[in-house]
Amino acid sequence: MQLLKERILLEGQNLGNGILKIDSLLNHQLDPRLMQAMGQEFSRRFEGIAVDRILTAEISGIAPALMTAVELDVPVVYARKKQPVTMRGKIFVESAPSHTKGGMVDLMVSGEFLRAGERVLIIDDFLASGQTLMALARLAMAAGAEVVGVGVVVEKSFEGGRDAMHNAGFIMPIHALATIVNMDHGKIELA
Amino acid sequence: MQLLKERILLEGQNLGNGILKIDSLLNHQLDPRLMQAMGQEFSRRFEGIAVDRILTAEISGIAPALMTAVELDVPVVYARKKQPVTMRGKIFVESAPSHTKGGMVDLMVSGEFLRAGERVLIIDDFLASGQTLMALARLAMAAGAEVVGVGVVVEKSFEGGRDAMHNAGFIMPIHALATIVNMDHGKIELA
Repeated sequence: MQLLKERILLEGQNLGNGILKIDSLLNHQLDPRLMQAMGQEFSRRFEGIAVDRILTAEISGIAPALMTAVELDVPVVYARKKQPVTMRGKIFVESAPSHTKGGMVDLMVSGEFLRAGERVLIIDDFLASGQTLMALARLAMAAGAEVVGVGVVVEKSFEGGRDAMHNAGFIMPIHALATIVNMDHGKIELA
Repeated sequence: MQLLKERILLEGQNLGNGILKIDSLLNHQLDPRLMQAMGQEFSRRFEGIAVDRILTAEISGIAPALMTAVELDVPVVYARKKQPVTMRGKIFVESAPSHTKGGMVDLMVSGEFLRAGERVLIIDDFLASGQTLMALARLAMAAGAEVVGVGVVVEKSFEGGRDAMHNAGFIMPIHALATIVNMDHGKIELA
C-alpha cells in the first residue's frame, strides 16, 4: 500500500531493538483518511473470502479493524487484555508474550461475541513474532470458529512471524499493507 | 439518537452500582453501521464549531472518536493509560479515578500530538462522574489547546458529571447521544 509506505518512511522512527515508532499514524494518533484507505485495502486483499466477524486485540488493532469492518459490514470484537467488570460468563483466554512490555499478556474474548461456525478475519497492527496473532487465532478456534485470513498493517518480516505461523500450521492467507525487511543500524527498509 | 437508545434498551444490562454493560455495541464488540451513525450524529451536533483535532482515551473511546474524525476529517489522538516504549520527549499527564477498576488511572498524551492553539473536540464513551473528561480537558489545556466541545456516547445523568464539569468551569457544549437518567433497581431508564 503505497500511501502507507510513504507515511512510514516519512514519519516512522526506528527506536532500536526492532521497535518501530509510528505513533503519528497508528499507535497514538490516527489519520482518518489513511485509516479509511487501510480498511478499503484490507477489503480488497480479502475479496472473495466470506467473513462473518473481525477479531482484533486492544488497543492499536481497533482502528484498522473497525475501518475494515465498515467496508465488509461485519461486527468487530476486540480481545481485552484485562478482564472488565462487564465480562462475565464463558470467556476464552489465550496468552502471548508482549513485544513492548515484556512478560505475557492475556487476550480475552467473551463467548457472547465469538461463535462456533463463524468465519473470522483477524486484523491487527503488527506482525512481528506472530505470537499475538496466533493467540487470536487460537481464541477463534477455541470458540469453534474458522480463521479465514489475517491482515496486519505492518509486517516486520525479519522477525520471522509469518514463517512461525506457517510452521505452527496456520495456513490461512496473511496480508500485510507494508512490510519492513530490515531495521538494522537505524534503517527502516521496506519491501 | 433513537437507534442508539433502542440498542441500549435491547442489549444493555444493568449490572448494579451504576454499571451499564453495553459490550455488544461499544465496549467489546463494535457494530460498524452503528458506529458510523454515531460519528455522523456527533458531526451534526457540533456543526458550525471549527475542530482541529479529536482527543479521546483508550480503549473504548477510540471507535466513536475515529468515526467522528472520518466525518470531520481531522486527526484523533487517544490518551494512553500506560506509557508505551515509543512515547518519549514532552508528555502531558493527568489522572482520573477509574470508574470500573478502582484507584487512579493516568492519561498521557505526547506533546507531538496536542499543540498550542488547536481547537480540540473531546469524544469518549461515557459521561459518568465527569472525572475522565475533565482530565482529558486538562491535558488539552496543558498543551495550550482550547476544548471546543465534549461528546459522549452515553451519559449517566444521575451521576452528576455534567454539573460537576460546569461547576469546575468547563463551559463548552456537552452532547450525549443517549442519556440514562435512572439505573435504580435494575432499571435502564433513558431520557
